[in-house]
Amino acid sequence: MTFPHRHLLGIEALRPEEINTLLDLADSYAALNRQPDKHADALKGLTQINMFFENSTRTQASFEIAGKRLGADVMNMAMQASSVKKGETLIDTALTLNAMHPDLLVVRHPQSGAVDLLAQKVNCAVLNAGDGRHEHPTQALLDALTIRRAKGRLHRLSIAICGDIAHSRVARSNIMLLGKMENRIRLIGPPTLMPAGISEFGVEVFNDMNEGLKDVDVVMMLRLQKERMDGGFIPSEREYYHRFGLDADKLSNAKPDAIIMHPGPMNRGVEIDGTLADDINRSVIQDQVEMGVAVRMAAMDLLSQNLRLTRGAE
Amino acid sequence: MTFPHRHLLGIEALRPEEINTLLDLADSYAALNRQPDKHADALKGLTQINMFFENSTRTQASFEIAGKRLGADVMNMAMQASSVKKGETLIDTALTLNAMHPDLLVVRHPQSGAVDLLAQKVNCAVLNAGDGRHEHPTQALLDALTIRRAKGRLHRLSIAICGDIAHSRVARSNIMLLGKMENRIRLIGPPTLMPAGISEFGVEVFNDMNEGLKDVDVVMMLRLQKERMDGGFIPSEREYYHRFGLDADKLSNAKPDAIIMHPGPMNRGVEIDGTLADDINRSVIQDQVEMGVAVRMAAMDLLSQNLRLTRGAE
Amino acid sequence: MTFPHRHLLGIEALRPEEINTLLDLADSYAALNRQPDKHADALKGLTQINMFFENSTRTQASFEIAGKRLGADVMNMAMQASSVKKGETLIDTALTLNAMHPDLLVVRHPQSGAVDLLAQKVNCAVLNAGDGRHEHPTQALLDALTIRRAKGRLHRLSIAICGDIAHSRVARSNIMLLGKMENRIRLIGPPTLMPAGISEFGVEVFNDMNEGLKDVDVVMMLRLQKERMDGGFIPSEREYYHRFGLDADKLSNAKPDAIIMHPGPMNRGVEIDGTLADDINRSVIQDQVEMGVAVRMAAMDLLSQNLRLTRGAE
Repeated sequence: MTFPHRHLLGIEALRPEEINTLLDLADSYAALNRQPDKHADALKGLTQINMFFENSTRTQASFEIAGKRLGADVMNMAMQASSVKKGETLIDTALTLNAMHPDLLVVRHPQSGAVDLLAQKVNCAVLNAGDGRHEHPTQALLDALTIRRAKGRLHRLSIAICGDIAHSRVARSNIMLLGKMENRIRLIGPPTLMPAGISEFGVEVFNDMNEGLKDVDVVMMLRLQKERMDGGFIPSEREYYHRFGLDADKLSNAKPDAIIMHPGPMNRGVEIDGTLADDINRSVIQDQVEMGVAVRMAAMDLLSQNLRLTRGAE
Repeated sequence: MTFPHRHLLGIEALRPEEINTLLDLADSYAALNRQPDKHADALKGLTQINMFFENSTRTQASFEIAGKRLGADVMNMAMQASSVKKGETLIDTALTLNAMHPDLLVVRHPQSGAVDLLAQKVNCAVLNAGDGRHEHPTQALLDALTIRRAKGRLHRLSIAICGDIAHSRVARSNIMLLGKMENRIRLIGPPTLMPAGISEFGVEVFNDMNEGLKDVDVVMMLRLQKERMDGGFIPSEREYYHRFGLDADKLSNAKPDAIIMHPGPMNRGVEIDGTLADDINRSVIQDQVEMGVAVRMAAMDLLSQNLRLTRGAE
Repeated sequence: MTFPHRHLLGIEALRPEEINTLLDLADSYAALNRQPDKHADALKGLTQINMFFENSTRTQASFEIAGKRLGADVMNMAMQASSVKKGETLIDTALTLNAMHPDLLVVRHPQSGAVDLLAQKVNCAVLNAGDGRHEHPTQALLDALTIRRAKGRLHRLSIAICGDIAHSRVARSNIMLLGKMENRIRLIGPPTLMPAGISEFGVEVFNDMNEGLKDVDVVMMLRLQKERMDGGFIPSEREYYHRFGLDADKLSNAKPDAIIMHPGPMNRGVEIDGTLADDINRSVIQDQVEMGVAVRMAAMDLLSQNLRLTRGAE
């Protein structure tokens, strides 16, 4: 088994060769997605349930399209309008769904660790679509695939992750993945948005964009979680943009062929200049979305293969 | 025709041999649902519309999965956000949907009788997914299948239905079904939550759990509809649990191999002790959910067969 | 190419022979929709996304059923609950979806012109499902098909469009389509609900129903947009019904075999008498809904054929 995992809960559990296996398969799905007929049968006869306890148009849409293109029966559960309101616990909800024999359960939850807990209770494959500040593995994998396709490799690159690192599961999963693949990671942001003890992860920390972006190959911007900003340190979006927003000036410190990334949705004029975001020579933001579908197809394909093996052996 | 019905509006219209026909087919779908490939073609080419005028995550999900596994094109109508708001009548909404030529219409509605009314106006098969305090036939059928699988038979059993009988369409449909199959039914609950004239239905009524649970084979708990409780009789959830909540002590009155059922979602610690609910030797609550999908597959399969026969004969 | 269009943004761009091509194909899909097995493969392997920035149960349901019956992978985006809330622009949302490689994008938007703008940014086929007061092309096409089937032709008919013309994209698209097919169009309504300069479109304008309905073949009622009525001119719904609501008396001015149409949802007793709406000898309101699915199947089929040709040629 080249991808010996029952679930995809985080990047932490993945080995570099497993990441490569997944990205290779995703590459072939990216090619399929550009065909007129973009349907395959890898998940035919299987049931995929998307349980989003937090709204996320783009991630849920990406998983839904991925599943449908692979022939799964896909169901979205609107968890806000659900039994959760009637006082049912997360575990009861999970056990109820589990009894309907889904094969793949895609879960987003506002609490760190909730998806891991849920995975212990069900006998299907669970994919973490983001849990609290913990992990967002498919985001890190799609970022990795985007980088690999743009740069021709996924190792020995100098990669800057910029902005609100402390609150970001995207940053956390990316730091782990890019570290495993032996890249040099630089974190840039205000000290208050930098997690405590982060330098132990073998990353370099900068509080100045011009300094931090020096000669990097990849500039990965994060979404400013406006709702989490407190007035103490950051006076305004304008001030934030001035100091940490990506513009042509700051970008000129990076390598001439450095690529620009953003997980979306973007706050144009807050963490990134709109013109840079749209610059097709530098920005790979649309590619990230495209690779998102491909990576999710690959992840569900691999997990379902394991599922069939395990069940066949029972 | 072994199941000579155009619609599934309630248990009232079903004969015992028709119930057995449906449960036998459901049994085979329960086996399919445990296969890795759980897809069949019984509803291929047909259109199923779920119209839920009341939220119900689990019932809607169960019907949706059932339809998709049988190859139907399934559509969920969010009736809260719909034309109902624009002042359209229920009948106009039904006629509009009917003109789109659905084959199966699954309807939940807060008013008793609304689903029957609607069924008279359309020329597709209608399945009642719960109407007011009237009927919830697929719930009674899934309970019956669960009992039959656990006990090896569905007749001459002593079955206790406990709690808020008066407000419960689940209780009403179950009383009819289990009565038709010649079981002894005991209703247990406070007098204020017992419907008037219920003893005419050939059931025994108890206001004391210890007495009522004596030697029963099946303990069927109901969800306490908290929103319908008035302070007059029941002082608190704690008091309710003390008197009518299922715990090990009260359960000891039942037969040693008595099974525990609950239609969900559960209020743990109100109508049932959480530990008992999770006891895999006694509780068949997860089986009920599992059988729900199977029963709905069987019901839609049988109704669609009649639909094809009727239309072929036109 | 008999239907040389990349998108279906409005009636304005269509030539009469293209309209006939589409209606002929829709006729054959209307026949399919009356079969027990109503599935075809015209959109197999393609991805259809419905983006509704305004709620519309019936139009969204019609497009969803149409796509599913043709084998597309259909996804509904709940745009209210989406990234639009997080401040993402319409164009960013469109580009994000576009990167997931949909083939068909069905869009409803409250602003006139928004759908055209969006169509310029994506490389899939866009269908306008209604934009502001601008166009609603599939509604005009389904009305045309309904008329053609009821009257045996779609030219040299006398057609009255009655009510709130000024605010209605339905009226606007219908005036264009019926004009292109060489019908005589009469607009009837209060002067305040009549758009300025409308007589330049070669239509006759009436403020009196009895006069306007004289000898017409088709009576097309519009929904009164209650929320847009101001108290200045129209004193009450009752007064409106008295002067402009369709009842048997006013209808007696039309030809004896005149048909009654309404795009729904109806305000019974405001713009139309309920009994007339239900009169199966005169009213074709249910037929309009039925033809809606057929017309949308035809439109998506034709656009997808062009899409395959264009992509094959790249």
